[in-house]
Amino acid sequence: MFEVTAEEKDARTGKLHTQHGVVETPCFMPVATKGTVKTLTSDELDEIGTQAVITNALHLYLNPGVDVLSHIGIHRFMDWDKTVFTDSGGFQLIRDFNLKITNKGLMFKMDKTNHFFTPELCIEAQNQIGSDVAMVLDDCPNYGSSYETVANSLKRTIEWAGRCKNAHKKSEQLIFGIVQGGVFPDLRKTCVEKLLEIGFDGYAVGGLTIGEPKEELLRILKCTVPLTPKNKPKYMMGLGSPEDILESISLGIDIFDSAFPTRNARHRTAITRHGNFEITKKKYINDFSPVDESCGCRTCKKYSKAYIHHLFKEKELLGMRLLSIHNLYFILNMMKNARKAIRNNGFDEYKKDFMEKYNRHE
Amino acid sequence: MFEVTAEEKDARTGKLHTQHGVVETPCFMPVATKGTVKTLTSDELDEIGTQAVITNALHLYLNPGVDVLSHIGIHRFMDWDKTVFTDSGGFQLIRDFNLKITNKGLMFKMDKTNHFFTPELCIEAQNQIGSDVAMVLDDCPNYGSSYETVANSLKRTIEWAGRCKNAHKKSEQLIFGIVQGGVFPDLRKTCVEKLLEIGFDGYAVGGLTIGEPKEELLRILKCTVPLTPKNKPKYMMGLGSPEDILESISLGIDIFDSAFPTRNARHRTAITRHGNFEITKKKYINDFSPVDESCGCRTCKKYSKAYIHHLFKEKELLGMRLLSIHNLYFILNMMKNARKAIRNNGFDEYKKDFMEKYNRHE
Repeated sequence: MFEVTAEEKDARTGKLHTQHGVVETPCFMPVATKGTVKTLTSDELDEIGTQAVITNALHLYLNPGVDVLSHIGIHRFMDWDKTVFTDSGGFQLIRDFNLKITNKGLMFKMDKTNHFFTPELCIEAQNQIGSDVAMVLDDCPNYGSSYETVANSLKRTIEWAGRCKNAHKKSEQLIFGIVQGGVFPDLRKTCVEKLLEIGFDGYAVGGLTIGEPKEELLRILKCTVPLTPKNKPKYMMGLGSPEDILESISLGIDIFDSAFPTRNARHRTAITRHGNFEITKKKYINDFSPVDESCGCRTCKKYSKAYIHHLFKEKELLGMRLLSIHNLYFILNMMKNARKAIRNNGFDEYKKDFMEKYNRHE
Repeated sequence: MFEVTAEEKDARTGKLHTQHGVVETPCFMPVATKGTVKTLTSDELDEIGTQAVITNALHLYLNPGVDVLSHIGIHRFMDWDKTVFTDSGGFQLIRDFNLKITNKGLMFKMDKTNHFFTPELCIEAQNQIGSDVAMVLDDCPNYGSSYETVANSLKRTIEWAGRCKNAHKKSEQLIFGIVQGGVFPDLRKTCVEKLLEIGFDGYAVGGLTIGEPKEELLRILKCTVPLTPKNKPKYMMGLGSPEDILESISLGIDIFDSAFPTRNARHRTAITRHGNFEITKKKYINDFSPVDESCGCRTCKKYSKAYIHHLFKEKELLGMRLLSIHNLYFILNMMKNARKAIRNNGFDEYKKDFMEKYNRHE
């Protein structure tokens, strides 16, 4: 299901085979929580080089519901014939809805309905949604939780991982475990060991990018990633800035997902080789050059900074669309270049060059 | 500049030659007030068969300003290489901004700046924006105004039309006059006569679709359209529902513009052969058929009612986009069929058939 095709120190390229084709790694997945990468069509995702997207099982379970999706499957529903991951949870969604977490599962009330989302139900939902890669349901304590809190939560995460694996009957769908354990290396180690005992098609690092300082993030990644097996895909959840992605590739991460490029686009920030900038700044009102001169995306080939500036100033939705296309293309193209660099044993240099230009912020 | 190519009673097909190509009439122009047809790119407009769009000179004069647009022109700015009309005014925009109308022009205060928008400035702006067809600045009294009010306003409209024509120096840009006169046939007649004395490349009917009952609209159209010359394009401003368009084609109208299809799309209403419907209705949650089975647009070829229903329920912008594409395609396709029918001397039958199906609302 996964093969490593080239290595440079800990960085590697690989191929993840799913029911909907081959995903070349390291790869970046645009976030389509509710079955749509915000503002974009699947044709556009395809054109910019997207290999896989990640949707959210809990969101889709609530709306439109698995009754709807089991009839058509997520691929036909959103007109996407490449790989689809489903994230399991969505705690942020339901934290405000009287969420109660017990060992049995998640209980919450939404729109006057009581929901009881168990690991078994979570896997069943992902089966019915028809994603190519399912994620286990995990319990993610807040950043700053005590060792004891995290240790207790971890027991639940491990138990749920086992129940998810048991409930998973669809052989053509891959299932990934999620490593929790907060900022405590020994808990991370315990978690990996237990997940390996259960056995998964891939291993994700969860419970990071939830407010911790970047040094903490890197410290935990550095001690966690080497514990997961070399012959399985390694997925860092929720990480999306260019610098963090490149750093994590160095540590051996294969798969990324983040709303970073699209959320920034909707909030007027363009991501470019020369750093990020806000398109609404006054100086762009009559700047007829593209967002990034060397970029090959449709936005940069067809439109100027001045036009996108105007669209944002006038609150025209097309502005968000055009920047979303550019930002995603930029990240996906960076991944492509990273893969090429690793194959040519030049990733360290690529990363250094990239960061030098990228940090030269205006 | 304009040639009639076929006639069936008063209905006709024709070709309007502009600097950016040939517009086959009867034609419908999507509205791009601020230089964008809301949510769509120029590629999408092209794909669905758009021949021309209409932007708004006053809006663009205010933002991004003619300083910006004179450098690049509206076509390159919005990446549209076909015909662009510019509407002149935008009274709705400025009615709230202490608008004062004198014979000299429009005075209003916006963002702490005093503006004085004269007929001369309006034409200069349209020259600098670089549209293919400029519209004169007119004075449009509210529906319900007395004969005396409308007659006084009409004097101004006629005077401004003359000043606009005098100020218009760009031979490659066409300029259309606008017939005002409210619901009073004799004032409409006076206006046409005066505009003919000045001489324009086309004649628009303005001051309708501002709240009057449909019978009033048709009554005024019926007495106004025949007064304008046969060898010039006849433009009915702001009319966009399928039934109104087909009726007006029968009366000899060549050009239409309206936000009807796109505004309806953004407000969840799909326009189809079998009438209009709201995509958010509960029954569409698991309706996996396209919005219109027989429609050739990208939305109908790729997506189901269920998916668009889901997008609207989740307030995902892609829903507006997909319905905008469908609704515009539907209207543009109807225009194409209308042209074909006129050429085959079968327009009356086409209209009858269309309306029978269209009125069979669910």
